[in-house]
Amino acid sequence: MQYQAKVIIELKLGMLDPEAITAKRALGHLGYDISSLKTAKLYEIVIEAESLDIAQHKVEEMCQKLIANPIIHNYTIKLQELN
Amino acid sequence: MQYQAKVIIELKLGMLDPEAITAKRALGHLGYDISSLKTAKLYEIVIEAESLDIAQHKVEEMCQKLIANPIIHNYTIKLQELN
Repeated sequence: MQYQAKVIIELKLGMLDPEAITAKRALGHLGYDISSLKTAKLYEIVIEAESLDIAQHKVEEMCQKLIANPIIHNYTIKLQELN
Repeated sequence: MQYQAKVIIELKLGMLDPEAITAKRALGHLGYDISSLKTAKLYEIVIEAESLDIAQHKVEEMCQKLIANPIIHNYTIKLQELN
């Protein structure tokens, strides 16, 4: 069975996000009134797995081993079965 | 009124995504059977606007002017009112 995982990788609270600071300032210069701006990375992964639980476990392992840096990142996984 | 926009910036079809290629290969080396992997950038923007329509228009302008590169990116905006 194939599963699609949408993984959002965010910086933990308190971590500096220079890209967000720059974008917020630049949009301010263009005249937009921005209250807050955050950036995150999105991974859309399609994997083969025997069940939803196994797919969830695999994607969590991938995040911990490679996709996210657990010292500075939080991650959220949304999983769905593909037809 | 405050509105929260979630903006997803994706590469257009056919654009090379070296980060995705590298991550897919590295996960393959770790033993995961990945069918496909795509990356995207997520911006979470809170803005002041008089109505949802105006907020939508402002965020679209921001994408065209600064956040996305219309030559290589597609963008999707999800907007909601904040309480």
